[in-house]
Amino acid sequence: MGSADESSVKVLSVWRSMFGVRILMALKEKGVEYEYIEEADLRSKSQLLLESNPVHKKVPVLIHNGKPLCESLLILHYIDETWPPKSAHHKPLLPHDPYQRSLARFWSGYVDKMYDACLLIAKNYPGELMEQGKSAIRECITTLEGALRDSFGGGQPYFGGSHINLVDVALSSYLCWFETLEALGSFKVLDENTCPLLSAWAKAVVEHPSVKAGLATAPSKKMLESMYCIRKNVFGLVD
Amino acid sequence: MGSADESSVKVLSVWRSMFGVRILMALKEKGVEYEYIEEADLRSKSQLLLESNPVHKKVPVLIHNGKPLCESLLILHYIDETWPPKSAHHKPLLPHDPYQRSLARFWSGYVDKMYDACLLIAKNYPGELMEQGKSAIRECITTLEGALRDSFGGGQPYFGGSHINLVDVALSSYLCWFETLEALGSFKVLDENTCPLLSAWAKAVVEHPSVKAGLATAPSKKMLESMYCIRKNVFGLVD
Repeated sequence: MGSADESSVKVLSVWRSMFGVRILMALKEKGVEYEYIEEADLRSKSQLLLESNPVHKKVPVLIHNGKPLCESLLILHYIDETWPPKSAHHKPLLPHDPYQRSLARFWSGYVDKMYDACLLIAKNYPGELMEQGKSAIRECITTLEGALRDSFGGGQPYFGGSHINLVDVALSSYLCWFETLEALGSFKVLDENTCPLLSAWAKAVVEHPSVKAGLATAPSKKMLESMYCIRKNVFGLVD
Repeated sequence: MGSADESSVKVLSVWRSMFGVRILMALKEKGVEYEYIEEADLRSKSQLLLESNPVHKKVPVLIHNGKPLCESLLILHYIDETWPPKSAHHKPLLPHDPYQRSLARFWSGYVDKMYDACLLIAKNYPGELMEQGKSAIRECITTLEGALRDSFGGGQPYFGGSHINLVDVALSSYLCWFETLEALGSFKVLDENTCPLLSAWAKAVVEHPSVKAGLATAPSKKMLESMYCIRKNVFGLVD
């Protein structure tokens, strides 16, 4: 490690981004101190963001020792490969076995199929696109329920079994949006009757300290108010 | 390892898929014997494909010891993590350093931004979508030229320096499409004047044994004939 500045860890994000929230969860899971920098206005991006992610110009960015890393799932890999578990009671986010690791990568990638659907619900209310968004989210949730049952030995608390893994972090970051989506779309994202395993997973994972701390940075009430505000000011929608 | 069947390696793909070609390259790079199974008709998918990739129902699939793996970049990770380099002269596809590894993952993911553009060119000729496709490919190529220069120390033969890495495999798999795209779109994908580093890279990488052997499974002449055939029979286009 070099000077204090060189060995620093910075997260550049927007508080309501699930992709940013998952980075905070992973850093907290590893016990890594970081400086959080809010990207104030995505319509007028900061020089730091433009220089750190010149290709996609998107948050989140992790800046470690002055070097920028982009794409939230890749950042989770980097965090897992850079910092060891913080105690003997913790495990890496990625399983040791290459096949299990590939499964974790596959499903954490699958989780992000929900993002476009979330945007449809946030932006289009009411309307056909809203229904498309709800339908897409229901399909993802059903598929994830099947994955938890068939590929991850449902019955354990987490996708990672008794400890959280990459899929748990990736999926739990969406929980900060679910209440808002439910309010905007007048529907239930996680229904105990149709997805009992995922519902039980959600109840367990929100109590996991690093997940809880990550979600606390994007509380549901603030998220809903923010969405109404964006819909009015950015999209010109009035309810 | 169990019985001969259990320890087998099978690749289920379509010969003209760059995503399949890159799997063959990686297996050849590791010196792994495999059985290749052609998915005969994507309009009527085989039971093996539907069972092996029930979520996306897409090729390629790697089946190792009876277990299916999906998503070509994840399969490349699996191959790299499962089989060691075949000699002391070879290196893993993923760099050892976590930051360099993240860069390799980022750029191999970026490469696949070209895929939708390739389809636009294959399906729409001539037309506005064709121009969109060509423009998107030019943008990707320009960005990759910049990456090779700035992030991978251009001047070396490969993205991986003196040996091929994940980005080399991911990008070189597109070379089996470039001549066809050039013929269909009447444009030059790799121009020595505008992308000298990438042009030099392409000349070097096609001579690398595992890349050469992978590309030989999808020769340009057969690819072009196949594209004309698909355009006529599937999309009903007549030139």
